[in-house]
Amino acid sequence: MARIVQKFGGTSVGTLDRIRNVARKVEAEVKAGHEVAVVVSAMAGVTNQLVQNCTDLNRIHDPKEYDTVVAAGEQVTSGLLAIALQTIGIPARSWLGWQLPLRTDDTHGKARILGLDTGAVVERMAAGEVAVVAGFQGIDANGRITTLGRGGSDTSAVALAAALNADRCDIYTDVDGVYTTDPRIVAKARKLNRITYEEMLELASLGAKVLQTRSVEMAMKHRVPVQVLSSFAEETGSALPGTLLVDEDRNVEELLVSGIAYSRDEAKITLVGVADRPGVAAGILGPLAEAAINVDMIVQNVSADGRTTDLTFTVGKADLDRTCQVLDAARAGLGYQRLVADSNVVKVSVIGVGMRSHAGVAQRMFKALADRGINIQVISTSEIKISVLIAEEYTELALRALHTTYGLDQA
Amino acid sequence: MARIVQKFGGTSVGTLDRIRNVARKVEAEVKAGHEVAVVVSAMAGVTNQLVQNCTDLNRIHDPKEYDTVVAAGEQVTSGLLAIALQTIGIPARSWLGWQLPLRTDDTHGKARILGLDTGAVVERMAAGEVAVVAGFQGIDANGRITTLGRGGSDTSAVALAAALNADRCDIYTDVDGVYTTDPRIVAKARKLNRITYEEMLELASLGAKVLQTRSVEMAMKHRVPVQVLSSFAEETGSALPGTLLVDEDRNVEELLVSGIAYSRDEAKITLVGVADRPGVAAGILGPLAEAAINVDMIVQNVSADGRTTDLTFTVGKADLDRTCQVLDAARAGLGYQRLVADSNVVKVSVIGVGMRSHAGVAQRMFKALADRGINIQVISTSEIKISVLIAEEYTELALRALHTTYGLDQA
Repeated sequence: MARIVQKFGGTSVGTLDRIRNVARKVEAEVKAGHEVAVVVSAMAGVTNQLVQNCTDLNRIHDPKEYDTVVAAGEQVTSGLLAIALQTIGIPARSWLGWQLPLRTDDTHGKARILGLDTGAVVERMAAGEVAVVAGFQGIDANGRITTLGRGGSDTSAVALAAALNADRCDIYTDVDGVYTTDPRIVAKARKLNRITYEEMLELASLGAKVLQTRSVEMAMKHRVPVQVLSSFAEETGSALPGTLLVDEDRNVEELLVSGIAYSRDEAKITLVGVADRPGVAAGILGPLAEAAINVDMIVQNVSADGRTTDLTFTVGKADLDRTCQVLDAARAGLGYQRLVADSNVVKVSVIGVGMRSHAGVAQRMFKALADRGINIQVISTSEIKISVLIAEEYTELALRALHTTYGLDQA
Repeated sequence: MARIVQKFGGTSVGTLDRIRNVARKVEAEVKAGHEVAVVVSAMAGVTNQLVQNCTDLNRIHDPKEYDTVVAAGEQVTSGLLAIALQTIGIPARSWLGWQLPLRTDDTHGKARILGLDTGAVVERMAAGEVAVVAGFQGIDANGRITTLGRGGSDTSAVALAAALNADRCDIYTDVDGVYTTDPRIVAKARKLNRITYEEMLELASLGAKVLQTRSVEMAMKHRVPVQVLSSFAEETGSALPGTLLVDEDRNVEELLVSGIAYSRDEAKITLVGVADRPGVAAGILGPLAEAAINVDMIVQNVSADGRTTDLTFTVGKADLDRTCQVLDAARAGLGYQRLVADSNVVKVSVIGVGMRSHAGVAQRMFKALADRGINIQVISTSEIKISVLIAEEYTELALRALHTTYGLDQA
């Protein structure tokens, strides 16, 4: 007997028929003798509609009330799945965030999990009852509903699996696993049977949308055995086993590079003619940090004249207007000559724990891009990834070239 | 400064525009210097859809999960109205049933209110914040969400008004008050400026759908000054003040009869050839009570032969099939000869506290119906109402005749 957490996303519970289908997947684990907790998202489209209603009433709405409104989506699904399970003879009950409780901080709209009480759930599961947990939601110290941000149900599932010390956390989604890159762009992309937590974390934070970044952080921290797999395997005829997140020492595939991610959600800003003296970068980034704008890649040119230089960095596309406003307001103090903004850029990243022990990975990337005449605008690296900023129009070309370069193409 | 509870039904919050309209009605009371709590229903159509989903999954679904699912509707509206209020500069926050908490028994789907803690709400209201309370929902001793039955938001509002010792409880709806009878049937029906709690209670329980019966019971018990009025007064150009529920001694209109109600939700059952001996009625009604079937009007004929008699009674139309099954199963023990069921009946009732002090009210009713050739099948009376069961086809004729007979027609 094992203890299993299953998570089903919005598409997987998008209709009553699909909820019935989910119930049968839960039934299969119960019939196999396992204790099961299920985490559900809102039915596809519901969250978008609720968000839209809040935004239509007020573009800048109270995040506390937003959370109260949008959490209703997962509440409905949890109740409906409990009914669907009972209907096929599986004892089940729904658990809302405040009922567990799943305690979070009070960062409404993007709350962080502080703790999760599973005493009552464990007791019921031991008695053979399936716990159907509304994902995405928690409760703060003031007793208000919080939500965990888009994709937060993944994090709910991993947190629950960690708290339950589950043997497996199966994330059912509308793709059948984690791919070497986006299969819609690179036809030869292939599904990975295993990927390390570290690589998955980079993939998620660099643009691959399979799992919420925080859920991977949490899985890595608590070593939760997460598996990403398709809820439509029967429909599509796919019998693939999904992708397992593993520790580095269990990753037998030993690829130099495991995946190639891209993010179009980038905008580049160059401040031309910045004084070349100590503290100027800090002086520029300070006001942005105060405005809660995340700066990603940063590069400072070597000064040509010894007195002024250029500073280039990227921010999220959604923050571009605000960034320009902040910098404009601070211009007198910063003393730059000109601000150049460009949102026609894409960040392409290659990720692999193999980089730690192999030299030349970056060199191969730069050469592959240069061979296709693709100019690299900004570079940033970490221990297990290299990211470059290039013109957006080269996205597909760059992805395909790199996929081939690192030997990831399907046979 | 007064303390006011406002309640808005599903039609009144059916679109974002209408929610904005509600916000302006709340604003008017706040601007007048009052402390305001608002109770909201789910947006029109939402509850029906959620109920349908539960029923589609399982016709006989777990009422605990049903409550979790359907309570989401009011949750959404409360958050949206809070946002709409904040948008026009009125401090507001939503309160869900479990957040107040509004404590109920565990009769899921039709729970009764046990108590309502208003400490936190009173504090916030005193600080100028509008409390937007999700109607229809509460929490039981097990921490599960409960709902109060169809129309339960009325009861939430009156309970809140009682707990807050409010100066007024304004129930905004899609009609502009309580009418002497259904204006869709009797064109000459007129709005009552005042009606006693007792009369309203009879009207509500006898088929008028303006207020949930329990809300009137609770208003009567706690002497809550309830006012029924239209949320669309501006749209329809009506400047009518609505209908006020009052104590009998404050009812200055002194009508003999205040209203005429009708209910098509009736079915008549006659058991022919029942033994005419003590205890036989109890023997028949016992199995029905055990099956939780409510029996309304009951009449036992005088025995012609001294040995057998007929017993006639009414049940809700929805219970007719089940009633026949129960009686059929118990036939051997009951020993009746034949069961005759008829669902083509309507119950018409005249209601008025004036009956207490005036004789001849019933006589006038019977004569008015007889003059139109309408046969009375069953009669039942209470201190302030007389109900008769007649063939359904005479509904409109009977209502109009009685409306004229008791002098209720508009000038």
